[in-house]
Amino acid sequence: MTLSRRNMFGLTGVGVAIAGTGGALGAVVSSGAESRGAEQVPFHGPHQAGITTPAQDRMHFVAFDVTTSDRAELVRLLQDWTRAAERMTAGREAVERGATGGGQEEPPGDTGEALGLPPSALTLTIGFGPSLFDGRFGLAGQRPPALAELPHFSQDDLDPARCGGDLCVQACANDPQVAVHAIRNLARIGFGAVSVRWSQLGFGRTSSTSREQATPRNLFGFKDGTNNIKSEDAAALDEHVWVHGEDGPEWMVGGSYLVARRIRMHVETWDRTSLAEQEQIVGRTKGSGAPLGATDEFAPVDLRAIPEDSHIRLASAGNTGARILRRGYNFTDGSDGLGRLDAGLFFVCFNRDPHRQFVPVQRALARDDTMMEYLQHNGSGLFACPPGVEPGGFWGQGLFD
Amino acid sequence: MTLSRRNMFGLTGVGVAIAGTGGALGAVVSSGAESRGAEQVPFHGPHQAGITTPAQDRMHFVAFDVTTSDRAELVRLLQDWTRAAERMTAGREAVERGATGGGQEEPPGDTGEALGLPPSALTLTIGFGPSLFDGRFGLAGQRPPALAELPHFSQDDLDPARCGGDLCVQACANDPQVAVHAIRNLARIGFGAVSVRWSQLGFGRTSSTSREQATPRNLFGFKDGTNNIKSEDAAALDEHVWVHGEDGPEWMVGGSYLVARRIRMHVETWDRTSLAEQEQIVGRTKGSGAPLGATDEFAPVDLRAIPEDSHIRLASAGNTGARILRRGYNFTDGSDGLGRLDAGLFFVCFNRDPHRQFVPVQRALARDDTMMEYLQHNGSGLFACPPGVEPGGFWGQGLFD
Repeated sequence: MTLSRRNMFGLTGVGVAIAGTGGALGAVVSSGAESRGAEQVPFHGPHQAGITTPAQDRMHFVAFDVTTSDRAELVRLLQDWTRAAERMTAGREAVERGATGGGQEEPPGDTGEALGLPPSALTLTIGFGPSLFDGRFGLAGQRPPALAELPHFSQDDLDPARCGGDLCVQACANDPQVAVHAIRNLARIGFGAVSVRWSQLGFGRTSSTSREQATPRNLFGFKDGTNNIKSEDAAALDEHVWVHGEDGPEWMVGGSYLVARRIRMHVETWDRTSLAEQEQIVGRTKGSGAPLGATDEFAPVDLRAIPEDSHIRLASAGNTGARILRRGYNFTDGSDGLGRLDAGLFFVCFNRDPHRQFVPVQRALARDDTMMEYLQHNGSGLFACPPGVEPGGFWGQGLFD
Repeated sequence: MTLSRRNMFGLTGVGVAIAGTGGALGAVVSSGAESRGAEQVPFHGPHQAGITTPAQDRMHFVAFDVTTSDRAELVRLLQDWTRAAERMTAGREAVERGATGGGQEEPPGDTGEALGLPPSALTLTIGFGPSLFDGRFGLAGQRPPALAELPHFSQDDLDPARCGGDLCVQACANDPQVAVHAIRNLARIGFGAVSVRWSQLGFGRTSSTSREQATPRNLFGFKDGTNNIKSEDAAALDEHVWVHGEDGPEWMVGGSYLVARRIRMHVETWDRTSLAEQEQIVGRTKGSGAPLGATDEFAPVDLRAIPEDSHIRLASAGNTGARILRRGYNFTDGSDGLGRLDAGLFFVCFNRDPHRQFVPVQRALARDDTMMEYLQHNGSGLFACPPGVEPGGFWGQGLFD
């Protein structure tokens, strides 16, 4: 564990504050994730961090358009971003001279709002959208078949201003200020080469991705992600998440495909639905999260005990044969001008081939899921997340070598 | 400390997780506020909570229009809201039958997404806007002179969709899901009597309001609120925050006036400004937060050492004679469609008389502050926050008795 961001003020004061909040129980009850402020997630490795990393509490997701048409400039950007990501995920400032270490007469190198904050388990995960392979950068021949655009799903109501993008970066951290700082500084480093196309903040994880995490609740009030692939299940990750050599192309081996969907939830309508109907729609009991007909959250789902059109039955591997690693976040973007909350689920999943995994699941849901009546899919993105970076390398290096 | 929200699952697992994150240092470095998940802030008392309560990490602020014209229904709403606020700030569900305790054939009483989450230091603070006193409810004679509408300030660029409101509720908590849950359930309880006019989420406090809190940084990267009134300074609170008998009206004694301003910060432009210029504009050094010419953050401000048009000089009590209790939050509402971050400061302050305190300070800033070039004030609200509630009473009872 390294604590190297500048100005680690307040350690003493904070220690005193914790000692005063009730001792062991006070420390235990605060959620595990929120106590992980100091945690540093390694940036380097065979896979990118932020996929199987136990889901942090907050997210800032951004999609960029590449505005330069110069391949060398794109490569330079990815190199600069990689160096900045290495630094920021270690709790350091975005660039060496930092917020105050340069000359007085030049703009600071780092925007400064994360000075004094610990790494907060920050992860930064990059993805390449289908449009990056349109020929501007000589990459058309490298486009993975799995990166074909997503089909239109019935009931899609997509807003072009929340869709697509040449690049995406997913920033996750246990402190939103750390996540926002990271995205802001990457955007700043990319000034002149990229511009922000759309972005989304998520305030609460909706899927546990580790057996150590309790299953969180979505804004329908139900536990969500009980049967998610867990980061401890190496065999399932290998089968369903990581791209293999036989899948190709070579530069994606060890990577994964990210699907993002902004799903507005009509919570006011949902809240007027009876408990029985809510549970029939989901296929689980609201209190415990157990599948209908069972009492334990983790009891196997008895497909005969739950309605044919229930959400968990349609989404189950038993229905489509497909599993995905979900890693989404609840969001609330204020209200919609009609007195209703603009809130829902920013769905993010990782899979080895979205056209064999996400797409059939979403097709089944879009067609038959009674929950769709309460949902509006209004944003969408598909991105190829290359494998991890070794020290000295850069994000997506295999695509450009 | 009461831990009474249902389903306190995961305690054991979380305890294990904490034990594994590095022992004492791991616990100490996570910010004090984020470790206060279990903390319960008392709802009852002479003043409302959420004013001098040490600022929690997250905020959900909402302004409502009252849609009923029936005074009795408004009173009933305030009574129902008070009961729900008592419950939710204690970590309980919004109403007695809760998310799963009613009949299967009726909609759940609570929306459920906070089941299993601790109180998270939730506070709920109500305010009454000038428009509530327009005569619909027989309150015109009760309007405090201090609740006169704010004047237009030079450079105001207000969006009517982010201004005003008959009522406001400020929800602050260390977990955003707890704050969002509280606002959502109040809106739900008020269905038919109120509708959401506008709302704002804040992700990081920008002002410490207690000597135990380190000074946080705003999105310009500077420490903000160093000289704020602190909750430990009873004499300053008495002089500058709480309404006295001689101020009148009687129903506001022990209350305070809340001013909210949505201040977009043009961070991209700011980030291209030299360090020297940033520091001259603010009047403080970026690293330590010390006033220019000093080395310690808390050194007294030497007005001769900082530029006449610097922010802290114009805002200082030495300039206008006025002090306010600031309690604002950083926000990021995604991007603005032009590739720029829609981010800034949701300014919230409490004062005894906004026309003698907030208004002269803001006049001076709007006229002379060089920082204004980087700011856009696009939302505004003024609300009278009545005194606290005793057990059995309700929010604003003195106004209706």
